[in-house]
Amino acid sequence: MKTKEPFPQHVDQLFTDSRVATMANSAYSIIENGCIGVTGKKIAWVGPKQALPEDYRNKCDQILDCKNRFILPGFVDCHTHLVWAGSRSNEFEMRLKGVTYEQIARKGGGIVSTVSATRKAAVETLFDLASKRLEALLKNGITTVEIKTGYGLNLETELKMLDVVNLLNQRFAQHIEATFLGAHTLPPEYKGNRKAYLDLVINKMLPKVKSQGIATAVDVFCENIAFSLDETKQIFKKAIDLGFNVKLHAEQLSDSKGAAIASQFNALSCDHLEYLSFESAQTMAEKNVTAVLLPGAFYFLKEEQKPPIKIFRQLKIPMAVATDLNPGSSPVHSMPLVLNMACILFGMTCEEAILGATINGAKALGLENLKGSIETGKDADFVVWDIQTPADLCYLAGLSPIKMVVIKGAVQYEKNDSHS
Amino acid sequence: MKTKEPFPQHVDQLFTDSRVATMANSAYSIIENGCIGVTGKKIAWVGPKQALPEDYRNKCDQILDCKNRFILPGFVDCHTHLVWAGSRSNEFEMRLKGVTYEQIARKGGGIVSTVSATRKAAVETLFDLASKRLEALLKNGITTVEIKTGYGLNLETELKMLDVVNLLNQRFAQHIEATFLGAHTLPPEYKGNRKAYLDLVINKMLPKVKSQGIATAVDVFCENIAFSLDETKQIFKKAIDLGFNVKLHAEQLSDSKGAAIASQFNALSCDHLEYLSFESAQTMAEKNVTAVLLPGAFYFLKEEQKPPIKIFRQLKIPMAVATDLNPGSSPVHSMPLVLNMACILFGMTCEEAILGATINGAKALGLENLKGSIETGKDADFVVWDIQTPADLCYLAGLSPIKMVVIKGAVQYEKNDSHS
Repeated sequence: MKTKEPFPQHVDQLFTDSRVATMANSAYSIIENGCIGVTGKKIAWVGPKQALPEDYRNKCDQILDCKNRFILPGFVDCHTHLVWAGSRSNEFEMRLKGVTYEQIARKGGGIVSTVSATRKAAVETLFDLASKRLEALLKNGITTVEIKTGYGLNLETELKMLDVVNLLNQRFAQHIEATFLGAHTLPPEYKGNRKAYLDLVINKMLPKVKSQGIATAVDVFCENIAFSLDETKQIFKKAIDLGFNVKLHAEQLSDSKGAAIASQFNALSCDHLEYLSFESAQTMAEKNVTAVLLPGAFYFLKEEQKPPIKIFRQLKIPMAVATDLNPGSSPVHSMPLVLNMACILFGMTCEEAILGATINGAKALGLENLKGSIETGKDADFVVWDIQTPADLCYLAGLSPIKMVVIKGAVQYEKNDSHS
Repeated sequence: MKTKEPFPQHVDQLFTDSRVATMANSAYSIIENGCIGVTGKKIAWVGPKQALPEDYRNKCDQILDCKNRFILPGFVDCHTHLVWAGSRSNEFEMRLKGVTYEQIARKGGGIVSTVSATRKAAVETLFDLASKRLEALLKNGITTVEIKTGYGLNLETELKMLDVVNLLNQRFAQHIEATFLGAHTLPPEYKGNRKAYLDLVINKMLPKVKSQGIATAVDVFCENIAFSLDETKQIFKKAIDLGFNVKLHAEQLSDSKGAAIASQFNALSCDHLEYLSFESAQTMAEKNVTAVLLPGAFYFLKEEQKPPIKIFRQLKIPMAVATDLNPGSSPVHSMPLVLNMACILFGMTCEEAILGATINGAKALGLENLKGSIETGKDADFVVWDIQTPADLCYLAGLSPIKMVVIKGAVQYEKNDSHS
């Protein structure tokens, strides 16, 4: 932290009397009695109150007393499938009553039901549904969100999902990154004809998605039940040629060696990774690929194989955590809940979990120079919390001690307690 | 459900156009296009809109359109330790860094640190801390709360905790039941002198607590690491003599046979029960004792032995679920999160989990004639939810789709969305 940098001649806003967990330098990096200067959309200064110049009051348009509350960077949720139509809670209930996945699939349930509902839904419907979710994320401190397609699985609907993401980006203050996941699962109408679908994804969808100009990255679900290593390579090759970033759903249910391939393509991230081998992890480390861990899906699917946290630590692979918000395997709408699960289920420390939801989430999106920590020059995205220590965010399950969310310098949410 | 009962000559309020999951008759018992009439603090009528008399508008002071939202009974949280001082999140963080329970205990951590902080805290401090928690529970739909003592472990502080509960009961709309848990753990100053502490609990504390008149029940933590079967019996005997209800922390960490003893004393409930034997369960069934299941503690303690849900089903033992809100093993402030954990971790169905948080929670407190279902004559405690099906409450993790909380006929919380 450059706490010794000089205070600017002028800042628009100065947030004072807070305890700032900057999350810089891969640690809490707490500044006691901390202040954050904001000019326009950017952080202009960060440091302790005693480092302010004597005449600082004359240099600020506005001064906000944070009453000794904690400020942390806005959360970066780097893996979601937030745009969908239809509900799967009935399916959730059926499974608990003993109905099997197979029986549900035969009734048209599972991901196919989400694809079918999403294909039928109008842009406005999808936008309304997604807006509610995005607002829920905002209210628990998420200021940057990645959103994947992959419930369209035909050109028209994949582009429609991206249009929805684009609308969300226009209407919400949160920064949104769109990812094309045409290779999410084989759509039912291509059953027995994988090659044709792969051809569609590579030769039709990818160029059209590129020319549409909304998605910045391409993701593939590489798994026994989804796309093979070889298919992944073909998709990645074209994606890279077109100038997309790539990332991968890898090693969630088996060791498919996807992470090693993704690393060779300089992927931004490999996600899930429960079955990652040491060798593949080494490749990730060499290529500085971020590991995105998704405890919500692990929990909902009642998995037992945990991602190799010790290997990530040993090889210094940055660990991000994300909600994986989706209707099938992770209807998880809260980052504090994800932090809690990362600690309880994966054994991450509180500091690792919070780094995962901030700076490492930003790394997973290639946004580490703009987002994820409270440092001069970065976007002024931060959250004021009514907590005693950052660990409270991981520990207080089901409580949202949020007070205020600031995005690019503007207050986007303030908790309004109307207890009568 | 008596949907055929005649509409009264007059009701104060009529909630119309809702879908009412009454939770009567041990099932969702959903009334589509349902209406709830409220007079004073009580439910005066429940039924479908088409059963209203033609001139019903003339018979209601106020009519509230619920816009087709779901209404469920207010949640009954029948097991909490909501009054405490001090924080244990630092301990949570240390454990994740590899510090053992023993090392933490040697540093004065664990329950001893909570007891120490609670003894030192003024009534006002304890009240303020507890108020925040009680308000959080209100905002996720909990309208009845049981609160245990047990962080005092001396006469003065146990009575002080009950004074705090009494204040909470006066200041909050939620119905509160107070339970004396002097036999929570052996206080450090009695180490090596169990008999003297038992004597204190039985001969000093119990009579004083009785004459104070706030607690209605007596609980004991019966376990290897806490109080023995024989000690439990001695405490229960005196408690019953004094006119208290009894309940038991039983079979959480081992099969101590506590549930069978508690049943013989006609306990309201046995709580935790992970290690319950079939024989003890039979005793519970014979005596109609409610099983209170606490998935939050199971989750936070990373337990693997689950309570015997199939036996409860087989023997028709009512299953309640509760937050177990406490700083050490279950800092869980949300009933929807508990419902989710009951489904995912214990394999309960959504209907069982919701019955557990409503009518069976009420049974565990002996309040089944007043609380826990939406039926004529019961207290008008209910919650309006923005959900499509009751299962959504179990499925949507980390989202609080609450709209309004009504307690004894009065709106106590309305969600106020101030997204700017």
